Amino acid sequence: MMLQNDLLLRAARGQYVERPPVWLMRQAGRVLPEYRAVRERLKNFIELVTTPELAAEVTIQPVDLLGVDAAIIFSDILVIPEAMGLPYEMLEKRGPIFPQTIRSEQDLQKIRVADAPSDLGYVAEAIRITKRALSGRVPLIGFAGAPFTIFAYMTEGSGSKTFSTAKKILYRSPELSHKLLQMITDSTIGYLKMQIAAGADLVQLFDSWAGILSPAQYRTFALPYIAQICNAINEVPVTIFAKGAFFALTEFAQLKCHVIGLDWNIEPTTARQQIGNQKTLQGNLDPCTLYADFDTIRKETQKMVAAFGKQHYIANLGHGLYPDIEPDHVRCFVDTIKSLA
Amino acid sequence: MMLQNDLLLRAARGQYVERPPVWLMRQAGRVLPEYRAVRERLKNFIELVTTPELAAEVTIQPVDLLGVDAAIIFSDILVIPEAMGLPYEMLEKRGPIFPQTIRSEQDLQKIRVADAPSDLGYVAEAIRITKRALSGRVPLIGFAGAPFTIFAYMTEGSGSKTFSTAKKILYRSPELSHKLLQMITDSTIGYLKMQIAAGADLVQLFDSWAGILSPAQYRTFALPYIAQICNAINEVPVTIFAKGAFFALTEFAQLKCHVIGLDWNIEPTTARQQIGNQKTLQGNLDPCTLYADFDTIRKETQKMVAAFGKQHYIANLGHGLYPDIEPDHVRCFVDTIKSLA
Repeated sequence: MMLQNDLLLRAARGQYVERPPVWLMRQAGRVLPEYRAVRERLKNFIELVTTPELAAEVTIQPVDLLGVDAAIIFSDILVIPEAMGLPYEMLEKRGPIFPQTIRSEQDLQKIRVADAPSDLGYVAEAIRITKRALSGRVPLIGFAGAPFTIFAYMTEGSGSKTFSTAKKILYRSPELSHKLLQMITDSTIGYLKMQIAAGADLVQLFDSWAGILSPAQYRTFALPYIAQICNAINEVPVTIFAKGAFFALTEFAQLKCHVIGLDWNIEPTTARQQIGNQKTLQGNLDPCTLYADFDTIRKETQKMVAAFGKQHYIANLGHGLYPDIEPDHVRCFVDTIKSLA
Repeated sequence: MMLQNDLLLRAARGQYVERPPVWLMRQAGRVLPEYRAVRERLKNFIELVTTPELAAEVTIQPVDLLGVDAAIIFSDILVIPEAMGLPYEMLEKRGPIFPQTIRSEQDLQKIRVADAPSDLGYVAEAIRITKRALSGRVPLIGFAGAPFTIFAYMTEGSGSKTFSTAKKILYRSPELSHKLLQMITDSTIGYLKMQIAAGADLVQLFDSWAGILSPAQYRTFALPYIAQICNAINEVPVTIFAKGAFFALTEFAQLKCHVIGLDWNIEPTTARQQIGNQKTLQGNLDPCTLYADFDTIRKETQKMVAAFGKQHYIANLGHGLYPDIEPDHVRCFVDTIKSLA
């Protein structure tokens, strides 16, 4: 099926675009009343993730309601640990909790490399349904957590300000850490390939907890596994978004990926200097900018695009939308980008 | 009273030292069983902060037990909001909570610029008792939160992953924000001058939440107030430690301060390049390194000093000690630095 709007894919591949494409992390989510209406009918978040028809429905909502240039499949990065044999619960306001964790060689016996078609078929099905319903209006983004971020949850057992348990394992048990990271990486490659076979037009890796590592640890325990994934995915463009990894931008520039996502702590011009001109950059407005009035949102959005330039660039926030941002303010951001044609 | 060990002050002033001085953020704290013994006799954390004899006792513990080259007065950055009229509670495992917050012009009526001698005299008293008890063995560090970090707590009302309420106020009510920041700054200058008059030999500003701001917002809402404080303190050296503010290092280099503290995300050589040679650098070992075995701690500590160099440098962690680090491992870090003579 031909895409009617392929701005995202052209920008990702470094081709000319009439204007930058725009989408938002967490665009399918609590910011939309229409999402909350679907979510409230269900007993929990995981039910939404694992029900393909509903996941597809909320995936498409922001295309209709916000006018973005791409959909991103509604799912969760923690489906990978679940598929590896380590289930989790998502508690309201507290976030994910893993009743069991991986902290010893013995614990590795509890888990396996995920078999994507059998363990994660519901995501493929959600992608197929979404692609049919989109019928080429915009591309569909697939995604997964980067291996270190998944490792952090599987060892810590929950979110954390410091992830000191996860990091303790890196320092005390580097061999165990590498074994687990390799299992996660192998699971993730199969998972992303399944998403692509089902119709994902681009895939993004989220390294949400990159910023808790020192540059040396990031080089040892995170980058090599991201590189394996980039090398394994040849079918579609790959985006790396590593929050807090300002120290690794020059290393990201060497990866076989197309797009580097940026958080709002880094200046666009600094990022471009460090990364060079071979990659497309994505980001990076402070999500809190969308709390401001429309004039401020327009001004800050235009300032951002002026700094990045309109080519080799995908407009986005520097992090996911916060749930209490008003949809009108999100549309103001999207419309400002679309008016740049 | 002459100091018997003035390594910290010489290093801060850029003078020659035989070896780098070493101390640790949160060295007076839960990592020491002797601290926990004092703490357990009390009903809460705030009682320890506001009882000068006990605050002095736990301040001195790490000098005796860890062999560090400086003491840092045991206190809390949130005594400033308290002194301004906004009391807080410290909940076990949940952190600080403010029953009232500042979110409107009207709320400003609830607070005032703190009068340090009357509102915070207990800290001066703790410093005087500590200085007498130390009798010149090592210098005593005073401290305060940097204005933006204090603003973040006073508006958000608690800790937060995103501090999105605090940031919403910056974006929606810049005038209110500047008024509150100025009141905090004025309170902090009086507070630090009181600490110095009572005997503090150096003062450190902690901008714990610097990393949640964009570079532009940091320049608008954080740096000018830090600069005011630096300009007002002429009596002793000043250290700025802004966690996550890698993007502001070149601007810190322009401040009238002596020392710039670094978190573990930044490479020592990158920091030195950006800051230049006029400032002393402090930091920045990943606190989690101290979970490792003694050989790894020694190796990583030596690597850090090799990267920073022994002059114009104060050895420390890149963040506070975590409570579950073993004292022997902390001593291994301290002893490694002391063996560099």
